[in-house]
Amino acid sequence: MKILVLNCGSSSIKYQLFDMDNNANVLAKGIVERVGMKDSELTHKRPGKEKFSIIKNIPDHTVGIDIILDILMDKKYGVIEDKHEISAVGHRVAHGGEFFKKSSLITPEAIANIEACSELAPLHNPANLKGIYAMQKILPGIPQVAVFDTSFHQTMPAYAYLYPVPYELYEKYKVRRYGFHGTSHKYVAQKACEYLGLKFENTKIITCHLGNGASIAAIKDGKSVDTSMGFTPVEGLMMGTRCGDFDLGALLYIMDREKLTLDKANNLINKKSGLLGISGFSSDMRDIEGKAFLENDERAKLAFEMFYYRVKKYVGSYAAIMGGVDLIIFTGGIGENGWEIRENICSDMEFLGLHFNKVANKDLYSKAEVISQPDSKVKVMVYPTDEEYVIAQDTLDLVN
Amino acid sequence: MKILVLNCGSSSIKYQLFDMDNNANVLAKGIVERVGMKDSELTHKRPGKEKFSIIKNIPDHTVGIDIILDILMDKKYGVIEDKHEISAVGHRVAHGGEFFKKSSLITPEAIANIEACSELAPLHNPANLKGIYAMQKILPGIPQVAVFDTSFHQTMPAYAYLYPVPYELYEKYKVRRYGFHGTSHKYVAQKACEYLGLKFENTKIITCHLGNGASIAAIKDGKSVDTSMGFTPVEGLMMGTRCGDFDLGALLYIMDREKLTLDKANNLINKKSGLLGISGFSSDMRDIEGKAFLENDERAKLAFEMFYYRVKKYVGSYAAIMGGVDLIIFTGGIGENGWEIRENICSDMEFLGLHFNKVANKDLYSKAEVISQPDSKVKVMVYPTDEEYVIAQDTLDLVN
Repeated sequence: MKILVLNCGSSSIKYQLFDMDNNANVLAKGIVERVGMKDSELTHKRPGKEKFSIIKNIPDHTVGIDIILDILMDKKYGVIEDKHEISAVGHRVAHGGEFFKKSSLITPEAIANIEACSELAPLHNPANLKGIYAMQKILPGIPQVAVFDTSFHQTMPAYAYLYPVPYELYEKYKVRRYGFHGTSHKYVAQKACEYLGLKFENTKIITCHLGNGASIAAIKDGKSVDTSMGFTPVEGLMMGTRCGDFDLGALLYIMDREKLTLDKANNLINKKSGLLGISGFSSDMRDIEGKAFLENDERAKLAFEMFYYRVKKYVGSYAAIMGGVDLIIFTGGIGENGWEIRENICSDMEFLGLHFNKVANKDLYSKAEVISQPDSKVKVMVYPTDEEYVIAQDTLDLVN
Repeated sequence: MKILVLNCGSSSIKYQLFDMDNNANVLAKGIVERVGMKDSELTHKRPGKEKFSIIKNIPDHTVGIDIILDILMDKKYGVIEDKHEISAVGHRVAHGGEFFKKSSLITPEAIANIEACSELAPLHNPANLKGIYAMQKILPGIPQVAVFDTSFHQTMPAYAYLYPVPYELYEKYKVRRYGFHGTSHKYVAQKACEYLGLKFENTKIITCHLGNGASIAAIKDGKSVDTSMGFTPVEGLMMGTRCGDFDLGALLYIMDREKLTLDKANNLINKKSGLLGISGFSSDMRDIEGKAFLENDERAKLAFEMFYYRVKKYVGSYAAIMGGVDLIIFTGGIGENGWEIRENICSDMEFLGLHFNKVANKDLYSKAEVISQPDSKVKVMVYPTDEEYVIAQDTLDLVN
């Protein structure tokens, strides 16, 4: 069975075509950028072959997906002969609110609920829906599945997901912690347990998804019990351009002094903060590390230290709420590649029962590998994430 | 030597007169309320004797302190014969910014710096200064000392006190973590070390000051290395009416939906949140516990759970940044009296090396006592705070 995975943004469409009968092999993947603008660009890749791109006007998501299907069936660059070879479509959907505790078949009711969550993710859910509607037009009747960034975290207890603000704000606006990156947290936690021969349903796990966006989750007995992103993805860890945890009173103070509107304030905490805000020159950890270690740049060093320090604090707090931790996993661009970050997070954590293996960790990039000492009570792993694979797998499970 | 300790608010003056030669004995204490309003009230107490109060118009702090001195010299209710028996005055000052790393003699330069910090504590520093000016008028030349809520935390490293927002905001407005309750954190940490025979300069300590305002501090080798209150006292733990940590994006979302001005938003997070916001009926932990345990009220239970859960997370995170913890101390109204809260914070913390003594903890109120098991690697104590004593002691040290 071939499954197409789509991740539709407001002006982009990412796709991957999986051959589920053949070890979930990726046949082709790519991205359409600048949808709805002039000179949209499609970039198309097949494993082991040269990539191909075209520039043309793509006014909307339906046209964009049509072009994706054309290229998938192309004589020269394609991998299928007929679009009906695609048996199902899996969509990444940003926000499932309190409706979706797990992935869901697309039905009229599911669409209505995804629409109802648009208020909580006004940039993402409407774009995700565009992809769903486009597929309904292009391949009427094809089974579609929505896989949510939020649903894995729906197991959090109320005392973890509620905020200490007037309870009416939860009732009125559904203001609560939802968390994101759920697909990634669940995937790496399950895979690392498999790798280590641990029982997912009986293990205390902390998953650190550290990328340009970053979040951390506490997973106890197979369930997410807390996570650092909240009502919005700005809460929690320090990120590329998002600030993460910050004094609310300080934000209001800055808004007053700088005469910021709500939009400008949102822009400040989402686009100008984090690594970029502290370093003053980049939101990319590779640049930060370069300047910090090679050029001894003070602000880059500070950004580096603040980043790992804040992850370390969350690791400690999640160990406390689970009564300890058995397994810590690093994933995402920084988690998989930033070995200096991993070393700093895991240093001086012997009190937890964590004995870190600096040698195994050093220069380890994007590879599933244990980076704790053999006798460490707390195991530490790097495990590369693969959200598209999870979407394909959930889709397969639901249409079968 | 007799030392008068003053804690001046915008419309109140708290006082305590210490006899430092006699074991820092408190000779008298009291409070003037409604300063600057009609029918101001002075309440005056002497240990072991009936309290006394008068109502009269007190237009400003100078008149208020004059009346305090009158009552201290009163034939019937007084404890001294002449105001010149008072050798020095210690003031609680809210904010010392980055100027004051420790308590300071009041000099023209110190006054200028306290004034410069008024922007950071616009409700408190000007009131504190009123008390200082009043004493200069009433007892010209008397040595005065300022003891700051912030100064103990000035040892935090930059990666702990800076926020991941544009660095310019720190340069321009001095937006950073300052922390508060420093006098209390330092006092209980030192006292508990003395009690246990531990060396303060060589111990990893977490102090939980839990009252209507609440903060927690990580103290390593005698120095505060992190604390939960930040640029303002709204950050960190859930409090009586303050929300503590909360998603910035969610706050902006609520401001948008509810059309809140900055003042209204500040009011929401400072006055309507915390225990009051969740329970819907009280900001007082005693009321919350009553309704939660006796009436099985769902919202009261939730407020109780959220409160201890958030302390527990901080305990874990501060253990992580110090590489473990040797001693955890509870103080403040809730910390000293809320044994159910203490039990919930310290349960299931064996992974830290903490073996809690539920029996010793139960029904223990406001008394210095160990509440961990004798064999617990991590010691846990209740230690009643006494900020006025620290102010008197610092004053003595600086004028001697």
